[in-house]
Amino acid sequence: MVNAGNMNGSGNLMDFLDEPFPDVGTYEDFHTIDWLREKSRDTDRHRKITNKSKESIWEFIKSLLDAWSGWVVMLLIGLLAGTLAGVIDLAVDWMTDLKEGVCLEAFWYSHEQCCWTSNETTFEDRDKCPQWQKWSELLVNESEGASAYILNYFLYILWALLFVFLAVSLVRVFAPYACGSGIPEIKTILSGFIIRGYLGKWTLLIKTVTLVLVVSSGLSLGKEGPLVHVACCCGNCFSSLFSKYSKNEGKRREVLSAAAAAGVSVAFGAPIGGVLFSLEEVSYYFPLKTLWRSFFAALVAAFTLRSINPFGNSRLVLFYVEYHTPWYMAELFPFILLGVFGGLWGTLFIRCNIAWCRRRKTTRLGKYPVLEVIAVTAITAIIAYPNPYTRRSTSELISELFNDCGALESSQLCDYINDPNMTRPVDDIPDRPAGTGVYMAMWQLALALVFKIIITIFTFGMKIPSGLFIPSMAVGAIAGRIVGIGVEQLAYHHHDWIIFKNWCRPGADCVTPGLYAMVGAAACLGGVTRMTVSLVVIMFELTGGLEYIVPLMAAAVTSKWVADAFGKEGIYEAHIHLNGYPFLDVKDEFTHRTLATDVMRPRRGEPPLSVLTQDSMTVEDVETLIKETDYNGFPVVVSKERLIGFAQRRDLILAIKNARQHQDGVVSNSIVYFTEDPPEVPANSPHMLKLRRILNLSPFTVTDHTPMETVVDIFRKLGLRQCLVTRSGRLLGIITKKDVLRHMAQMANQDPESIMFN
Amino acid sequence: MVNAGNMNGSGNLMDFLDEPFPDVGTYEDFHTIDWLREKSRDTDRHRKITNKSKESIWEFIKSLLDAWSGWVVMLLIGLLAGTLAGVIDLAVDWMTDLKEGVCLEAFWYSHEQCCWTSNETTFEDRDKCPQWQKWSELLVNESEGASAYILNYFLYILWALLFVFLAVSLVRVFAPYACGSGIPEIKTILSGFIIRGYLGKWTLLIKTVTLVLVVSSGLSLGKEGPLVHVACCCGNCFSSLFSKYSKNEGKRREVLSAAAAAGVSVAFGAPIGGVLFSLEEVSYYFPLKTLWRSFFAALVAAFTLRSINPFGNSRLVLFYVEYHTPWYMAELFPFILLGVFGGLWGTLFIRCNIAWCRRRKTTRLGKYPVLEVIAVTAITAIIAYPNPYTRRSTSELISELFNDCGALESSQLCDYINDPNMTRPVDDIPDRPAGTGVYMAMWQLALALVFKIIITIFTFGMKIPSGLFIPSMAVGAIAGRIVGIGVEQLAYHHHDWIIFKNWCRPGADCVTPGLYAMVGAAACLGGVTRMTVSLVVIMFELTGGLEYIVPLMAAAVTSKWVADAFGKEGIYEAHIHLNGYPFLDVKDEFTHRTLATDVMRPRRGEPPLSVLTQDSMTVEDVETLIKETDYNGFPVVVSKERLIGFAQRRDLILAIKNARQHQDGVVSNSIVYFTEDPPEVPANSPHMLKLRRILNLSPFTVTDHTPMETVVDIFRKLGLRQCLVTRSGRLLGIITKKDVLRHMAQMANQDPESIMFN
Repeated sequence: MVNAGNMNGSGNLMDFLDEPFPDVGTYEDFHTIDWLREKSRDTDRHRKITNKSKESIWEFIKSLLDAWSGWVVMLLIGLLAGTLAGVIDLAVDWMTDLKEGVCLEAFWYSHEQCCWTSNETTFEDRDKCPQWQKWSELLVNESEGASAYILNYFLYILWALLFVFLAVSLVRVFAPYACGSGIPEIKTILSGFIIRGYLGKWTLLIKTVTLVLVVSSGLSLGKEGPLVHVACCCGNCFSSLFSKYSKNEGKRREVLSAAAAAGVSVAFGAPIGGVLFSLEEVSYYFPLKTLWRSFFAALVAAFTLRSINPFGNSRLVLFYVEYHTPWYMAELFPFILLGVFGGLWGTLFIRCNIAWCRRRKTTRLGKYPVLEVIAVTAITAIIAYPNPYTRRSTSELISELFNDCGALESSQLCDYINDPNMTRPVDDIPDRPAGTGVYMAMWQLALALVFKIIITIFTFGMKIPSGLFIPSMAVGAIAGRIVGIGVEQLAYHHHDWIIFKNWCRPGADCVTPGLYAMVGAAACLGGVTRMTVSLVVIMFELTGGLEYIVPLMAAAVTSKWVADAFGKEGIYEAHIHLNGYPFLDVKDEFTHRTLATDVMRPRRGEPPLSVLTQDSMTVEDVETLIKETDYNGFPVVVSKERLIGFAQRRDLILAIKNARQHQDGVVSNSIVYFTEDPPEVPANSPHMLKLRRILNLSPFTVTDHTPMETVVDIFRKLGLRQCLVTRSGRLLGIITKKDVLRHMAQMANQDPESIMFN
Repeated sequence: MVNAGNMNGSGNLMDFLDEPFPDVGTYEDFHTIDWLREKSRDTDRHRKITNKSKESIWEFIKSLLDAWSGWVVMLLIGLLAGTLAGVIDLAVDWMTDLKEGVCLEAFWYSHEQCCWTSNETTFEDRDKCPQWQKWSELLVNESEGASAYILNYFLYILWALLFVFLAVSLVRVFAPYACGSGIPEIKTILSGFIIRGYLGKWTLLIKTVTLVLVVSSGLSLGKEGPLVHVACCCGNCFSSLFSKYSKNEGKRREVLSAAAAAGVSVAFGAPIGGVLFSLEEVSYYFPLKTLWRSFFAALVAAFTLRSINPFGNSRLVLFYVEYHTPWYMAELFPFILLGVFGGLWGTLFIRCNIAWCRRRKTTRLGKYPVLEVIAVTAITAIIAYPNPYTRRSTSELISELFNDCGALESSQLCDYINDPNMTRPVDDIPDRPAGTGVYMAMWQLALALVFKIIITIFTFGMKIPSGLFIPSMAVGAIAGRIVGIGVEQLAYHHHDWIIFKNWCRPGADCVTPGLYAMVGAAACLGGVTRMTVSLVVIMFELTGGLEYIVPLMAAAVTSKWVADAFGKEGIYEAHIHLNGYPFLDVKDEFTHRTLATDVMRPRRGEPPLSVLTQDSMTVEDVETLIKETDYNGFPVVVSKERLIGFAQRRDLILAIKNARQHQDGVVSNSIVYFTEDPPEVPANSPHMLKLRRILNLSPFTVTDHTPMETVVDIFRKLGLRQCLVTRSGRLLGIITKKDVLRHMAQMANQDPESIMFN
C-alpha cells in the first residue's frame, strides 16, 4: 500500500506516466495557484535530478547547473535591472533638459553633461554655460525678455505633450499592462495570482521606454514604482530560461521577490532597503533562501548602476546628504508634526485618488484615456513652468530641499544674510536670518506644495507608467523644508524662548532645514504606502548615518498611526481592492467569530455540492458536470460523502480531451475510475478511463467547527486554493480563496462582490 | 447550529465559563506549544477587549493600554539591554586591566580611563602613563626585569583563575541555565519549546555577572552570544508584566524575537544587523509587526548603549574602521581564499567542538565541570601571557587587526620602513616595505592563530557563559591580516608582476591589510554560524560604507559554500541536535518520498490508537487511559473511528481534578460527555461530567496519502503539536512533532532516538 500510495501523492503526479499530457498542473489566466502543490512538484523535480545525478558525470554536472541556476538568474537580473535603471536615468536627464534647450556641442548631452567642462556647478550658475542654449536663444537668438520667455514656455508645453502622447500611444497599442506603478499587481502576482503577459518582454520594453517619456514630460510622477515592475519583468524573462523556474509558478515567485528587491535597490541606491521593501511590502512567500538571493541581486544591481554612474558623482544613492549638526530633543515636536502631516496627506491622497480612479472606471471618463493624459499634462506643464520649483524635475527638487546650506551654496533657498565678520570654517555655519530669496522661495514652495498635492491625485492611475514615491516625497520635502526654515528663523530670532534656550545659543548652528525636508519626505511616503522598517532603512542608506534614524522613525511611526486611524489600507492595497484582485493580505487581522460552516459552499438551501464518485460516473457525466458548473475542481467521494481526493477542473478537461484523442475505446459512456485497482471490464463494454493520476489524494480538510481565523491563517500560510469542510469524516462543503476573501470583505462591511477573480 | 458551534471552537475555550479552572491551556516543562491554539487564544482575548472597550471610557483606555503594551515592553527591553551591555563593557574593561595593574588615582578606573588625562593614547605609549601601576611596580617597585615579569605573569594567571572560579561557582549554585552561549536554546524556545527558568530573573542576573568575570579572565570566548541570552531574559521578565504576553506563549515569543535583535544590536552596535540576525538566525515565527518592533527595540538599545558610551569615543560600534583606499578586482582572489579558510575553520571547529562536547556528556569528564574550567583557564593564561597578541583582550586585538596603519599608528603591526622623503598627507600613505616589527608581529600572530584555534574548541561548551562570535572573528582577523600583509609586501616588491601591474603602481597605496582582517573575520564567523545576510549587514554597519560589501559577500558566500559541503549544520543547529531539542528547522529541506501513513502511530502491528469516545466512557476509564499512556492528548471519536475532536492530556487531568473537587456528584463511574447536548440522566445514576469545553473541535487532519514533505511543511508553517491521520473520513493514527523529527533524523541516517523531548 505504501508503494502504491507513493505513486499517487499529489506531488508525484508526473511519475506515473512521464509528462502524461502537456499543461497538466498549469493554471488558467486570472486564477490562483496552489502553493502547496507547486512546492510538492518542485520537490519531485529536485528529487528526480538528485537521483539521476548519481548515474553519470554528465547528469551530475547538470544537477550542479540546476543548483546554480538560481544564482545565475539573480546575477542576470541584477545586471539588467542596474543597466536599465542607468539608461533610464541618463535618458530622463537628457530629455528633461531637452524641454528647455539643447547642447550645441553634442545634442545628446544633458544640460549638466554639456556644462561639465565649465566650472560652474551650482544650481544658479548652471545656466551660464555657453555651450548650452535655450530654445529661444537657438531659434530667435534671445535669451531674456518676454517673447523669449513665452517661446520657451510654449516649447516646454509642446515637448511635454509630445512625450506624453508618444507614451500613452505606445502603452495603448503595444502593452496595456505597462501602465500604472505595477506594485499592486506585483503584490497580487506574488501572492499567487496569474496575470499572463503582465511581466512579459513587451511590457518590459514598453514600460522602460514610456517611463523615460513620462518622467521627462514633467508630470507629477516618479520612476521608482515602475522600476520595480521593470525589474520584475527582467526576473520573469530570465526565469523562463530555466525550466526550474519557468515550469513552477511557486519557484518563479521566489525570483520575482528578489527582482523586486533589485528594483528598489536601483531606484534609491539602497540595496538593504530594497530587500526589506520586498520582504515587508511586496512579497508573500519569502523563505530565507530568497532573502539571501534578493540581497545578492540587489547588490549586483546597485553596483551595475554605480558603474554606469548616471549621476556623475560615483554616489550610489539618489539623494546623498551630509549634515553637519546633530538634532536636539526639542526638535522631535516639529518632526512629529511632520509625521501627522504625512499621515493626513496619505489619507487624503488615498481617499481622493481611489474616488477618482473609481470614477474613471465607472463613468465615461475611462473611455478617453489619451485625452485625459493629454489634458493633465497640459495643465501640469502650464502651471508648473512659471514656478522654478515645479519646473525642474521632481528628483532635483527633492535633492535641493534635502541639502544643507553650505557656504558655497548659491540656491535661492540658501539666500541668508551673512554676518560679514564670519570667519568660521565652511562646514559650520551658524543660523542666520533669512534673506529675501528665502522668503520668496517659501512662497513659491507653498504654491508648489498645493499644486503637487492636487495634481498627484489626478496623475496616479492614468494609463501611463507612474510611480508615487517621488511625488509623495516631494510633497513631504516641501512641507518639511518650510517647517524647517520656520523653526530655524524662530530659533534665530527668539533665542531666549524657553524651548530654544537649552540647546540653541546665538551664533550656533542649531537647525538644519534639510533634515526637516528629509523627515517630511519619509512621513509622507510612509503615510501613502504604510511602509515602516524598509522606509527607515532606505532613508538610513541615503544619509548613511545612524544619527538621524530617531527623527525618521518618529515621523514614520506617527504618520503610520495617524493614517491608520483613518483607514488601514495603504495605496497599494487600496488599488488591489479597487481592481478586485484576490489578495489575502498577511497584515490584515481577521478577528471575527465566524466558523468554517458559515463560509463554506453550498450554503443552506443551495443545491448540494457537486462531487465526482470514484467508480460510477461515465465520461459523459463528468463532461456534463464540467459544462454545467464553473467550479475550479471537484471533490471525489466514495458513496456516502466519504472524501477520497480532489480533482482540478483544468486537469479533468485536459485528461478527458487527451484520452478521447489518443486512447482507443474511450467513449462517452466509458466509466471513469479514480480507484487504485479498477475491476476488470467485460469484453463488450467500453474501455474505462483511469484518472487516479490526476487525483490529489491529500486534499486539505478542516472541520465545520474550525474558527474562520484559523482557516484564514491556513490559507495565508499554506497558500491554499481551496479547502474542504468535513464533519466527523463526512464531506459537507468547500471553501475557496475567493469565499474567504468575500467573507472577509463582508465582515469588514465592504461589498463582497468586489472580489472578482478566482 | 452556528451559534452553538461558536461557543465551542478551540479558540473560544474561555468563553463558556470564564476561566473555568486555572492553568487550562498551559504547557508542561520541556513540551512544545501549539502555535495555532496560542494564536486563537490571543484573538479571543483581543476580541473580548475590543468588545468591552465600547462599554465605558475606562475600558476604552484599558484597551488602548493593551494595544500599546507591546511598544512599552520594547522600550523597556531596549533600555535595560543597552544599560546592561554598557555596564558589562565598562566592568570587563576594568577587570581585564585589573589582571595587569591598578590605577593609583582611583582603583575603579581602567587603564585607559586612568590615562585619559595624559595625552598618550596610542597602543605603545599607553603603558607610560604614570598613574597606572603594574602589579610589580606597586608590590615590589620594579617595572622591568625578569622578576617583575614573573610576578606579573603569576598574578595575571591568579586573577584569571579567581575570576573563573567565581563564575563557575555562581553558575553552578544559582543558575545552571546561565552557561553556554544560549543561542541554541533560544532558537529552540522561539520555535515553541518550553524550558522554564531558562529566561528567568536569576539567569539574567547570574549570566550578566559571570559574563563579566569570564570575559575578563581572558578565556577565548566573547560576550556577543550571551548578550543575546541576557536580552532575551530581559524580554521574558518584562513580558511577564503584561498579561497579554505572560499568558500567551505565542505572543511571548514575539517579544523574545525582538529582544534577540536588541541583544545583537548592542553586541555590535548594529541595529539593522540585529534585526536581520533575529530574522535569519534565531526566530521561528516572525510576523511583520515583530519586524517593526524589533527594529524599535534594537534602536533604543543601541542609543542607550551609546549614551553610556563605554568605549569613550561616542561611536556606536565595537570596531569602527575607516579605510582610505578602494579594493581592486584582483584582490577578490585572496578574499575568496580567506572565504575557503573560513569555511574550513567552521567545519573543523564544529566537528571537533561537537565531538568534545559529546565526550563531555557521555564520559566522566562531565562530572568535574569546575575542574575543567579551572584547567582550561590555567592553560589559556599560561600560554596567552607571553604573546602580546593573546595577552590583551580579544576585542582589542580584533580592533587593532582591523585598523589601517595611519601615519600616527605606533603599533608593532605598523612598523613599516618609511620613505624619508615622504611628504604625503596623513591619510594617503603608499605601500611600504615591512620593518622588523611587522615580521615579528607576523610570527606572533601565527602562533596566536594556532593557539586560538585549538583553545576555542575546548572553551565553547564549558559550564560558563561563552560566546563564539569574538573568538571566531579573532581567528579570521589574524589569518586575514597575515594574508593581507603578505599580499601587500608581494605587491610592493613585485610591482611588475602581471597580477599587480594593472592596479598597483609604485608609490601607491594599493593594499589595506586591515580590510583583509575584516574579510577574514566575516568568513570565519560565517563558516561557524552559517549566517549570511545578517553577517554582511553587521559588517556593513561596522564599516558604514557600501564600498566593501562585495569583498565581504564574496568571503561570506564562499565560506558558507565550503562549510556546507562538509555538513549543513551550523554550530547552533549542531548543539541543538546534541542536546536532543525538538527543533524543526525552517532551513532543512525534506525531500524524501515517504507518506503520512509511514510515519503515523500506531505502526502496523502496534496496539490501536488510544481514543476517547464521546459519550460512553466513565471518569475512571479516562483516568485509567491517562495513567496507562503517556500521550499528550487523545482523539475523541463517535463510534467507528469517526473523529470529532481532540483533548489535551493536561487539560483532561486538570478538568477531572477540578470536577472531583468542586462539582458535586462527579464520581469514578460518572459518564464523561464530549457531546453538545448530553442526554438527561436518570435521577439515581451519578452526575455526568461535561467536558466539551476542553475539546478542540477543529483538530488538524491530513489523509494517509499526504506526502511527508507536505506534512513537514504544515508542521513548520502552522507550528502544530500534533496532526491526526485519516482515510476517507476514518481516523487511522496520529503524527506528533516528535514523530516528524524522528522520521527526519531517520531519513538523514541519524539516530532517531536523539530527539529527546516532546
